[in-house]
Amino acid sequence: MKYQEGMLVNDALKGNVIMISGGGTGLGAAMGRYFLTLGAKLVICSRNYEVLQKAASEMEKETGGEVFPIACDLRDYDQVEKMYEQALAHYGRIDAVVNNAAANFISPTDRLSPNAFHTIVDIVLKGTANLTLIAGKNWIKEKAAGTFLNIVTTYAFTGSAYVVPSAAAKAGVLAMTRSLAVEWAPHNIRSNAIAPGPFPTAGAWERLLPGELAEKFEPSRRVPLGRVGVHQELANLAAYLVSPFSSYINGEIITIDGGEWLQGAGQFNGLRAIKPEWWDAMEEKRKKK
Amino acid sequence: MKYQEGMLVNDALKGNVIMISGGGTGLGAAMGRYFLTLGAKLVICSRNYEVLQKAASEMEKETGGEVFPIACDLRDYDQVEKMYEQALAHYGRIDAVVNNAAANFISPTDRLSPNAFHTIVDIVLKGTANLTLIAGKNWIKEKAAGTFLNIVTTYAFTGSAYVVPSAAAKAGVLAMTRSLAVEWAPHNIRSNAIAPGPFPTAGAWERLLPGELAEKFEPSRRVPLGRVGVHQELANLAAYLVSPFSSYINGEIITIDGGEWLQGAGQFNGLRAIKPEWWDAMEEKRKKK
Amino acid sequence: MKYQEGMLVNDALKGNVIMISGGGTGLGAAMGRYFLTLGAKLVICSRNYEVLQKAASEMEKETGGEVFPIACDLRDYDQVEKMYEQALAHYGRIDAVVNNAAANFISPTDRLSPNAFHTIVDIVLKGTANLTLIAGKNWIKEKAAGTFLNIVTTYAFTGSAYVVPSAAAKAGVLAMTRSLAVEWAPHNIRSNAIAPGPFPTAGAWERLLPGELAEKFEPSRRVPLGRVGVHQELANLAAYLVSPFSSYINGEIITIDGGEWLQGAGQFNGLRAIKPEWWDAMEEKRKKK
Amino acid sequence: MKYQEGMLVNDALKGNVIMISGGGTGLGAAMGRYFLTLGAKLVICSRNYEVLQKAASEMEKETGGEVFPIACDLRDYDQVEKMYEQALAHYGRIDAVVNNAAANFISPTDRLSPNAFHTIVDIVLKGTANLTLIAGKNWIKEKAAGTFLNIVTTYAFTGSAYVVPSAAAKAGVLAMTRSLAVEWAPHNIRSNAIAPGPFPTAGAWERLLPGELAEKFEPSRRVPLGRVGVHQELANLAAYLVSPFSSYINGEIITIDGGEWLQGAGQFNGLRAIKPEWWDAMEEKRKKK
Repeated sequence: MKYQEGMLVNDALKGNVIMISGGGTGLGAAMGRYFLTLGAKLVICSRNYEVLQKAASEMEKETGGEVFPIACDLRDYDQVEKMYEQALAHYGRIDAVVNNAAANFISPTDRLSPNAFHTIVDIVLKGTANLTLIAGKNWIKEKAAGTFLNIVTTYAFTGSAYVVPSAAAKAGVLAMTRSLAVEWAPHNIRSNAIAPGPFPTAGAWERLLPGELAEKFEPSRRVPLGRVGVHQELANLAAYLVSPFSSYINGEIITIDGGEWLQGAGQFNGLRAIKPEWWDAMEEKRKKK
Repeated sequence: MKYQEGMLVNDALKGNVIMISGGGTGLGAAMGRYFLTLGAKLVICSRNYEVLQKAASEMEKETGGEVFPIACDLRDYDQVEKMYEQALAHYGRIDAVVNNAAANFISPTDRLSPNAFHTIVDIVLKGTANLTLIAGKNWIKEKAAGTFLNIVTTYAFTGSAYVVPSAAAKAGVLAMTRSLAVEWAPHNIRSNAIAPGPFPTAGAWERLLPGELAEKFEPSRRVPLGRVGVHQELANLAAYLVSPFSSYINGEIITIDGGEWLQGAGQFNGLRAIKPEWWDAMEEKRKKK
Repeated sequence: MKYQEGMLVNDALKGNVIMISGGGTGLGAAMGRYFLTLGAKLVICSRNYEVLQKAASEMEKETGGEVFPIACDLRDYDQVEKMYEQALAHYGRIDAVVNNAAANFISPTDRLSPNAFHTIVDIVLKGTANLTLIAGKNWIKEKAAGTFLNIVTTYAFTGSAYVVPSAAAKAGVLAMTRSLAVEWAPHNIRSNAIAPGPFPTAGAWERLLPGELAEKFEPSRRVPLGRVGVHQELANLAAYLVSPFSSYINGEIITIDGGEWLQGAGQFNGLRAIKPEWWDAMEEKRKKK
Repeated sequence: MKYQEGMLVNDALKGNVIMISGGGTGLGAAMGRYFLTLGAKLVICSRNYEVLQKAASEMEKETGGEVFPIACDLRDYDQVEKMYEQALAHYGRIDAVVNNAAANFISPTDRLSPNAFHTIVDIVLKGTANLTLIAGKNWIKEKAAGTFLNIVTTYAFTGSAYVVPSAAAKAGVLAMTRSLAVEWAPHNIRSNAIAPGPFPTAGAWERLLPGELAEKFEPSRRVPLGRVGVHQELANLAAYLVSPFSSYINGEIITIDGGEWLQGAGQFNGLRAIKPEWWDAMEEKRKKK
């Protein structure tokens, strides 16, 4: 079960300082933990300082690395700027920014208030834009190389019902990734993104959908490989993309979903439900013609 | 029910000669019939001359237009060249080529013989390449403007299980469309494609899948709009794309599938099965937090 | 020069009421004018009432149709709601909404203030979301069919340097288009988009870039067909997409750019600069091997 | 310069047998060499046995690994089947197949003979299909897990002038990748692809284009990062994709081109030629309004 292990050589991120928005929980924390074991130092930021601090001290204990938690509402440019300066003062450098913080509602769109829609756009798109502008301006001014890694979703590209504000905001982040990959490359700044499929965090799905619904919509059913993702699989890909080993990947969005979106998209994929004896019968019929 | 009527102004294709491969049956014939009512003259070609001739005389009777049927195996470059010259001698000009002829097997890929795979590639990709090379060389030599319209499928882009040779070959046609849209545009040759979703032809689905299976995989279920397409809808789009009205569309693949491929692709689209009272309950729960 | 003429049959939009945001100027007005000649009635809205009113009376004079101008800042949900209700009270129905209003800066991203970035996102993405939510909720409540047509850009998909806020916001609109195409289709609401290439409005390019720069970056150079688009070409496509003739197109983004984005994207497209005698020489060389 | 070093942990591919078509030269050999240092055993196949054997013995000397060369014309299904059986007899297992062999002409499409077009399709698309069918059927029969890695090009997606047969054939491979990712995933077979940008092999570009042309079309100019790729960068990505560390990536095409295709595609990317003082002037002008 190698995919549950770290894949990069020792010290792959040695000396790198990586900032992860929303890095105190879920996938953000999973990526951060692996970056630490590869020798990186972390900045993690989000609104809830208590959660951040607890996560930071656990991650430090677990990995022996160094984590600097800073409270910050990403929607507020001034707060983000102050946070970035604090981190820079603390470590003296920031090498990569992982725009991972997000927010989402699952709801029919016609039940959404304008406020609900705007809030998701503010957190996901404007929040990412704020941190990106600040880091980019700083790297350019300092003539320092830098790397962006943006966490989007597969529906940033295909769209999806019931999560429309998130789809719109993540698509915005995707376009920002591709745009800046070109514009800022001459400044030695790379931009890439990951579009993860189902990587459940403990109990989230069951909390979202009660009993029989959770069973009915079990995400692994949508995945050709028949299982959801393991956090280390995402962490491996993320570590590769923030490391210098991926230096020639730029402007790319890598989907890691076991083939989920393709399974629904391809016109005849549903025929998997046909049993072998039916295929036999159809073959016979064809031969007779 | 306007979508069952023709949409373009009278004589929109007046004086145009349009060649449709596989134009004697199905969607090819549906497009051809509409082109005739708009004033175009047709060349239709495929292997079975008897079918072609019958179709031609029916189409002429129905529309008062002129249809020239020529037997031709598209896999054989020399036959295609001879066919093209015959058509040119007959009408004096050819303004557009619709690469519509196709072939397909529905089968698990591991049950396919190499011969089955190669045959589909030969008909769909090489056949299209043959006709495209001949028409293109001729237009360039004669300094005549020309238009290609290639009929592909939505799975040319997403891929699909159980129709893999067709997916590969149609994807090849799609790439050829985009490539030549750039390369041959300076010669006044445009290239576009249509990717149709389910446009059933009489009895085809039922012949393919026996009884209960036909019901189970009923294509309209996969379409957000809840219905399959009507031939005139495809004919309207095709007529637009071969007409001068679309002169600034070049290198484009237009999907006309009611939203079919998107419905499967978007991660949360399946939640449509959730009933309003459940959405109510979830909203209540969220408010309590 | 048929592409400078209207393409749809008379009265194709007879009795339809179409709302166009930003419909008083540029491409919005060009689409509106053609919709009027096809029998539609218009609502046009934007911030500047004076401009709107002047446009409305000119359009009415020119076409004999009916245009209702309403001032509205699309960023403000309450204003949009009031505007929509006014239009509904006036005409008794709204059949289609064209989200066309936009705003843009051309600037290196590291020179942008956060405020500049947020303003573009507010106008383009939140403005579109506001009008879309209001129209959609209304159509669903009234069990009325409806059609969205969203005007995006080719860089909504590819991204682009120097217009990053616009790229992000338009990509958001694109994802919204695909998402709602699936979610709202069961309510008889279709959603599509157009991605136009260069369709210049009088003097805009020259105003933007002074003298020699305007010449150097002349947009027609980027287009394989060697010319920019004519407004009627866009109007023809737009009329098709708001009309019932396109009833089976749903969730689609149609690019109309003469092949512009493809010309830059394809790896060897630049070889067009190679002269015929060089191709001759290369062929000779190959034969000798 | 970490991107010139191997990135995966020691023994990442220990015990794996990997078959690389066209593995004796260029990028195929570069990938193979790195797989060997990670503990894999190789099969390399192509038409020229002499070249293969020389490469095999050099690779073995250099890495201490084991390489089994087999001559084979991929266009001939029977030869491919025999080759596969020989490899299986030799090693007892095959874990991954890298479809890397290719052929290409750079030529205006209207100068191509039908034979030239068909030959490229036969080698690239049918050759890949042959090896894929054989490996897939074998893995399914033996209930063994397997991994496909297909090397395509960025123009498999965007198309490209002057390499149209290659574009069509590679697009076919791309669609096959996505299709089988879904169809064969339940058999524990993953399918992915890499779309490399410019990774020059010694002298190839200069041999292709004489003197001043080679300079004029120097590929690094098209890349935002301003350089071509280094073979180890491709090898790192390829090793990741054939290793179990990428177990949740399936049906994905990863572009590694420094941002090349995006630079040409984005509408305003060319404005990079504008000098800072012009941006200053435009800002001033905007402020005055």
